[in-house]
Amino acid sequence: MLAEFDLIRRYFMSSQEAMTASNGVALGCGDDATLLVPQAGQQLAVSVDTSVVDVHFPREAPAFAVGHRALAVALSDLAAMGATSRWCLMALTFDQRHFDSDDAAHRWLADYARGFHALNQQHATTLVGGDVTSGALSIGVTVMGEVPAGKALTRGGARAGDLIAVTGALGGGAGGLALWKQGERDLAHPLLSRYLLPQPRLAAGLALRGLATAALDISDGLLADLAHLREASQVGAVLDIAALPLAEGLESALGQKAALQAALSGGDDYELLVTLSRDNLAQARQRLAPLGLALTVIGRCCEALGVSVSDQTDLGGTDLGGKDLGGYVSGYAGWQHFSGEAP
Amino acid sequence: MLAEFDLIRRYFMSSQEAMTASNGVALGCGDDATLLVPQAGQQLAVSVDTSVVDVHFPREAPAFAVGHRALAVALSDLAAMGATSRWCLMALTFDQRHFDSDDAAHRWLADYARGFHALNQQHATTLVGGDVTSGALSIGVTVMGEVPAGKALTRGGARAGDLIAVTGALGGGAGGLALWKQGERDLAHPLLSRYLLPQPRLAAGLALRGLATAALDISDGLLADLAHLREASQVGAVLDIAALPLAEGLESALGQKAALQAALSGGDDYELLVTLSRDNLAQARQRLAPLGLALTVIGRCCEALGVSVSDQTDLGGTDLGGKDLGGYVSGYAGWQHFSGEAP
Repeated sequence: MLAEFDLIRRYFMSSQEAMTASNGVALGCGDDATLLVPQAGQQLAVSVDTSVVDVHFPREAPAFAVGHRALAVALSDLAAMGATSRWCLMALTFDQRHFDSDDAAHRWLADYARGFHALNQQHATTLVGGDVTSGALSIGVTVMGEVPAGKALTRGGARAGDLIAVTGALGGGAGGLALWKQGERDLAHPLLSRYLLPQPRLAAGLALRGLATAALDISDGLLADLAHLREASQVGAVLDIAALPLAEGLESALGQKAALQAALSGGDDYELLVTLSRDNLAQARQRLAPLGLALTVIGRCCEALGVSVSDQTDLGGTDLGGKDLGGYVSGYAGWQHFSGEAP
Repeated sequence: MLAEFDLIRRYFMSSQEAMTASNGVALGCGDDATLLVPQAGQQLAVSVDTSVVDVHFPREAPAFAVGHRALAVALSDLAAMGATSRWCLMALTFDQRHFDSDDAAHRWLADYARGFHALNQQHATTLVGGDVTSGALSIGVTVMGEVPAGKALTRGGARAGDLIAVTGALGGGAGGLALWKQGERDLAHPLLSRYLLPQPRLAAGLALRGLATAALDISDGLLADLAHLREASQVGAVLDIAALPLAEGLESALGQKAALQAALSGGDDYELLVTLSRDNLAQARQRLAPLGLALTVIGRCCEALGVSVSDQTDLGGTDLGGKDLGGYVSGYAGWQHFSGEAP
């Protein structure tokens, strides 16, 4: 039986040496609590996300991806605030009985920790607290970032007339899940990678500070998350379905109709959904270009509450009729994590 | 099926109105992240604790107690740092299938939230973030407190010659668990209450700032937690077993031997274990008196590493021989949560 202290020490405190005053860590892991030094003039952005086996990721997912993904979905919330990620805490609940041997459990933990640490490192984030408990596999990650007072991107700043835009491409999360269910296991597959190794858009969130009027990350699906933005900002939205940037390979993998469905209602894309004035679009795109990230306009905010789709003349080459599109928009409420089911 | 957003809104955002600038909350729940305003000159003390059903609390425990306890064990870490509790985040994983009906699930959640909120309120702590997911019942609580730079109580400050003392009484957590297993269900029973409704010693931690040289909370059992303190401070300890303050009713409930065992190695007491110089003892006791909390000297720190027990002449009226005591000290390593078993 692995002991808690050993586990924590062996796999999760390797970043200990990296804890220095420059990381804002005054006292690192190993005491009752960690002591952090927030920077003057900064607000602290905090959020927690739980990833549960068989709800948020498949039991057979590679341990590296489980560690990466649990952290990524939490960091994505900081990205959506335009915050700089600083610190995180990780609560791992882990059932050793799922493994044939202590060795197998150790291998899983080592891979899991590798995935977690690698993403932390990529985003200059320090693991400053943790807990390892026995039970059904789940990971709770608390992330802490900083943002200058008054500069955070919220959900409530969209105004009628603002453009609605998304970073990157949509539908990859749901597309990857569909492929996983069909037996695809190659993490290098672009869709599977979108699903299991999502990239939190922290640099994009920073770049859009001062330009976007509102932002959130697409975790529940475009329509569901747009609904959150509409409600918080008290605006309506007109969507140009034909403009949705579909993830690479999505249409050929799922077919046109399911691909559109994935982009509209599939969860787990972790792209940013933002609103901004038309005047700022060019500058926003310029700032995202060095990140290799497109910013695609997919609609605009309007005064009439609710969401509608642009008429067929705006739909470009798609052969979907207006009636079908209405069906998409009203028929998919977006992913509800609590149901434990993909939409 | 209960939807995640409804759940969070209904049960956990009631404290929303309480979020004001005076709580240090610049932007409350409902966005991607919450924005907090740390106070200048303060360090941030952060810690996370997971409570898992059937590991940390029984499945049949009253929902009120589950909510209270999950928060209490996390707050206890802030108490041990001498920090003032400010904010917390709660990740609840919850399996609706364990309930006969939606109504039963709602009742459980309402009671759970009541227990959580009541303790938060008692300690002026604001719930600033949460996540509700579907899965085996477990609760991850991240707590955030503040402490003036350089004033935190750590595990590493004990020096040879310091007294070792504990707040309140020991063994109640393990005693309550033993009674629970025997069928006791009355939360008003002092031992059961110690187990299921532990009181984090936040006021005591604050009061001992500037007097205690080291501190931690007793969650794993006195001997195990003393070992953490000894290791961090690089000191040894001589314990006066006869001086251990046993929880009220513990000896009559368990018998003398099991009571001592519970005090030495039972987990879940959540009292503070502190070291301090003999010169500061009277003042420390004076500060704790208004809290109705005793501070009992149970030993002293020494240079020789390891732990030993005082010889029989120091043991007062107890009829336990030195050999038996040695057995206690070497035989119980304290609670290891990861094993999922009480010692």
